[in-house]
This record gives sequence, C-alpha cells and structure tokens, in this order.
Amino acid sequence: MSITKRFLLPLAKARLPLYAGVDLGGTNIKSALVDDEGRMVAFHTEPTHADRGPEDTAARMGRTVHTLAQMAGIATSDILAVGLGTPGPQDLARGVILRAGNLPGWDNFPIRDRLAAHCGHSVTYANDATAAAYGEFWVGSGRDYDSLILLTLGTGVGGGIIIGNASIDGAHSHASEFGHIIVDPSATARRCPFGHSGDLEAYCSATALKARAAEAIQQAAGGTLVDAVRGGEELTPILVSREAAAGDPLAMELIEETARWLGIGIVTLMHTLDPEAVLIGGAMTFGGEEAPVGRAFMERVRAEVRARAFPLLAEKTILRYASLGGDAGSIGAAGFARRSVAG
Amino acid sequence: MSITKRFLLPLAKARLPLYAGVDLGGTNIKSALVDDEGRMVAFHTEPTHADRGPEDTAARMGRTVHTLAQMAGIATSDILAVGLGTPGPQDLARGVILRAGNLPGWDNFPIRDRLAAHCGHSVTYANDATAAAYGEFWVGSGRDYDSLILLTLGTGVGGGIIIGNASIDGAHSHASEFGHIIVDPSATARRCPFGHSGDLEAYCSATALKARAAEAIQQAAGGTLVDAVRGGEELTPILVSREAAAGDPLAMELIEETARWLGIGIVTLMHTLDPEAVLIGGAMTFGGEEAPVGRAFMERVRAEVRARAFPLLAEKTILRYASLGGDAGSIGAAGFARRSVAG
Repeated sequence: MSITKRFLLPLAKARLPLYAGVDLGGTNIKSALVDDEGRMVAFHTEPTHADRGPEDTAARMGRTVHTLAQMAGIATSDILAVGLGTPGPQDLARGVILRAGNLPGWDNFPIRDRLAAHCGHSVTYANDATAAAYGEFWVGSGRDYDSLILLTLGTGVGGGIIIGNASIDGAHSHASEFGHIIVDPSATARRCPFGHSGDLEAYCSATALKARAAEAIQQAAGGTLVDAVRGGEELTPILVSREAAAGDPLAMELIEETARWLGIGIVTLMHTLDPEAVLIGGAMTFGGEEAPVGRAFMERVRAEVRARAFPLLAEKTILRYASLGGDAGSIGAAGFARRSVAG
Repeated sequence: MSITKRFLLPLAKARLPLYAGVDLGGTNIKSALVDDEGRMVAFHTEPTHADRGPEDTAARMGRTVHTLAQMAGIATSDILAVGLGTPGPQDLARGVILRAGNLPGWDNFPIRDRLAAHCGHSVTYANDATAAAYGEFWVGSGRDYDSLILLTLGTGVGGGIIIGNASIDGAHSHASEFGHIIVDPSATARRCPFGHSGDLEAYCSATALKARAAEAIQQAAGGTLVDAVRGGEELTPILVSREAAAGDPLAMELIEETARWLGIGIVTLMHTLDPEAVLIGGAMTFGGEEAPVGRAFMERVRAEVRARAFPLLAEKTILRYASLGGDAGSIGAAGFARRSVAG
C-alpha cells in the first residue's frame, strides 16, 4: 500500500542505455528502470489513488520517473525512453484511457501525453497486459520464442499477443481481450462483470472461481473447504488452492474446472494465432510449476489442449507459466520504449 | 471440370509488371496473371487430378504459368514473380504440404519447390485461405481497410488474417484455422470431419448445414424443404437457401442457426484480433448482399455480434461479404508474390 523501492542491478554493471517503464493499475503504480538487456536497475511502487483524479495520478507517475533516475544516480534526461502500460479499453493511437473499470471517473483521459508532460520524455503507450506479454517475450519465460500469447488470470482475464517483436493491438486497441472470447454459448452460461455471457472471464477469473466455489459449497456435503468457509474463513482463490493442496476433492475439482475452461480458450487461440508459446500469468496460477496445485492446474490445461487441438500443435506449442510476476508490465513498457528508439 | 481460360484486361492497359498466382484446390487448379494493381490479364482453370500424384499436378501447374504468359503474349520470364496457395496443413517455411484432406497421398510433398522447378521462377508460398484474404485485402471488398480477417464457408471453414499488408501464418503454419476454434464445449456438441468437438466447422460448413438439415427434416411436420427432400431432391445448401427464399420457416431457421454460430465465432475473433473488417466468403454466403437470404444471414450474424461483442467493436467493426469469389486465392497468391519483390 505504501511506497516501496527496490535497488537491483548496480549501474556499473548495467548495459546502457536505460529505459523506464510505468505500469498503471487500479491499485498501484509500478515503475521500473531497466538496462538494455531488460535487467532492473531500480523499481518503485506507490498507490494509484485513482479517486484523486487522473491528473494527480499522472503527476505522481511523472515524479516516479524522476525518482527512478535518482535511485540510479543519473539525470532523468539520461533515460533514453519511457514506456507506459495502462488498463483498457483505451485508444492507443490517441494515448487515451477510454473507460477503465478500475479507474472510475477517468473517462477519455489523455494519460500518455500527461505523463509525457510530467516526466519530460515522450511516452510509448501500450495496453498493460500486452506490455506484460512483451516483458515476458523480452526477458521472461517467453524469451526463447519468436511469438507468444500471454493470458493473465487475476480479478479479470486479460492477455497480450507478441509476434516477431511486435504486438497485435487491433484496429480499435481492443485486440487480445482474451477474457471476452466466447467459451460457452449456452443460454445458461455464466456472465463476466462486463455482462458478456459465456466468455472466458466468466469462468477463469478469480471472481469467477469464487462465484463457482460459493455455489458448490452451498450444495456440498462436506470437506475441508466447506468446513473452512462455514467456519468463517474468507472464500478466496488462495483458500481454494490451500485446501486443494491439502487434498480436498471439491477444492481440486474447482481448480481443475477452471483449467478445463482455460484449455478450451487456449485451443481457440492456438487455432487462431498458432503462437510458438502460450504463457499463463497472474495471481490465479496457484503457485506455478513449483507447487503441486500449480502443476495439477497446468497439467489439466494441457490435457484439454491435447483432447481438442490439432495433434501437431498440441505436441509442439510450448505451454508454461509466465516468470516475471508483477514486474512484467513495467519491464515490458520499458521494452516497448526501447523498441521505439531502436534503429 | 475441363480447362477454361478467360482473357480480361488487355495487356496494353495493364500496369506492369505482371505477377502470376496459382491456387491449388482438391478439385481445380486456378491460375491468374494480374497486373501491378491486381487486375486480371488472364485466368486459367484445369482439374487438379490429385489421384495422378503430386508430381504430375506440379508439372501441370508449372505449365499453367507458361500458358498464362502465352495468353498475355509475353514470355514466362517477363512475369516478375509467382505465388502459390495450397490447402493446409502445411509447412510454409519448408514449402511442403503436410497432409491435406482433399489431396490424398500427397503427404509431405515439396509443392513450392516443385512448382518453381516447373515454371522457372522462385515461388512465394501461402495457405490458400490466407491468399484469398490477401486478395480481398489488396483488391477485393477489404481494399479500404488496414486489417481484416476473412472467414471462408464452404465444404469446410477456413480463413486468413491480414494486418497491415502482412499475414499471420503462425509458428507452425497453423494460424487462422478458424474452422477449428471452439464454439460449443458441451459433451453433446457436433463434430467436424477432423473429429474436433464443437468447433466452428461442425456448425457453419456446408457439410454441417446438410447434417443439421437432415436431422431437422426427420423430425419436421412439414414445409416445402421437407417436401422437396422427401420428393427426392438432393439436400444441399443451395436447396436450403432456395426454400428459405421461398418462405419455408424450417429452411430459414437452419440458415439463421448457421449465422448465429458464425456470429459467436466472429465475436471471439474480434476480441482476439480486433480487425478493422471481418469478411465472409465461400459458397455458403447464400447469394450475398444482393439476395434476400444472404442479407438475412448477414443480419443474423450482425445481431449475434451486437449481443455479444464490446459495444465499441460491434459499432465500428466492418462486417461484409468478400467480393472476389473463387478468384480471391489466385489473385492473393499473385499479390503475395508482388509483395515479396517490393522494395
């Protein structure tokens, strides 16, 4: 919640020049100063305070760029380029946030140019999930691949598409809205918070997992997940994951059902984009490959892909977790800035 | 079935240089000679005779390039570049048809290089549906847009993705396999001929329409479609379209159900790629915008898009029929050849 700073690679070991990336979220502003190989020299986080209005936030975002320079012991003008990622929907060409669900009252705010005014650099603007995908592509678990898609599973479901060092942004800045691809066309399908019926977000977000778990618990005979919730514990994906790890069948079923829906969506994306790699990131990754539940989740996704995809793609497409966690967006925004000045 | 030739734009009016495009299908080889503005100077069709083996077909494909040159009164060496589109699955980088369903026994045939050997030009190789998308992008109903997807509805369902003069081919040459995106995940979903459950091809191909119509007719009380089929007429999409045009409710319901499934798939593609335009081509377009059934079909697709897509995309994305018909693939293959030599 408060301001945090991390000092990382010493400047003396960095490969110059340096780039700054700012990742604006509904809760926090995350900013990274990275070197030419994507290694972080400094990292800074502070609360967004979206309720203070966009201009206040933009001014503080500008100051974080100066702060990053100070942390590294350089002048802000020594930063070669600055990148920015924000939630959508947005108009990337105009640099405008149109109507972000987690930034109420910010409609049509020209965030790119306001940040530029406050930090003294022109700003390369991207969707936040696309920036995260580019971060993974540049230096994360996608660094060995020429093309990838990233699906981010959190409160909502987002994503990004990177093909050969370029992102697919769409004609109206609405590409890679993977949360809103249709996975269940039936009249009884679940709905996402945007009101879309049967889309991926209605099944694979943290919100969706909680809703499905609450319904299942009401009808369940027993088990440790049921006991925990009836005993007063808050129903969260972390609780479901904990009880799944402890062997509760209902908890594991809820997680595997999430994986099944995700696998269905991934098959559609594989047959549309055929990327070299599909990465899964965000909070809903259940500890990743290091954790039993994370491994079970990924294995269930893979099983659905094997059952539904072209055999050649099921065999060859890399399917793995993202590796940069919450740093991906700011690193990727810096990476887009770097790409914008590359020869 | 036989060899046909069409002479079109006179050479004296063509804008040089000229390009040849060859579109290999399971039934016919279609070849076009086009000028620098994509206008056809000559067109040639002959049967594929896939059963004679791939080398025989490749030799005849090479001869069609010479024939096109003769038709135009130029030397084959005066053609600046040659393009080829073939069905997938294929390996575009290696120039190989892997295992095309309608070219039995052709597995792993190096079609690109064999055509090159027979026509004396190096050959630019593409997926046939992607070539058709590029043809529409270059000179067809997509010519005013910077990005588009084409869905081709025929015996199967295919498609292509063009963004800013480039195609999305995929890491394994399997992108834009729109027939195999999942639209119905249920255990009772229909299957496409590849065995995929609940994919778009299982609902929107001519094969699927016939299968759904046959089931509906078995259970129907009456109507002109039922009468026609019980009277011995062959059940085809054309018959269904004719009876829908004549006012048969069952026939129109079958067509609108096809449109509903197509709309669901298109929403997923819009939320993934956000193209400026979505084009629908192939035999299953029911006469297009000029015909009452074609208009009803498109209107039902648009209604599904309005019900499910982001409002901004439902409002702004162009949704229309392709315009080049069966010429799109050969023109697009020539267009890819032209692009390969552009500065």
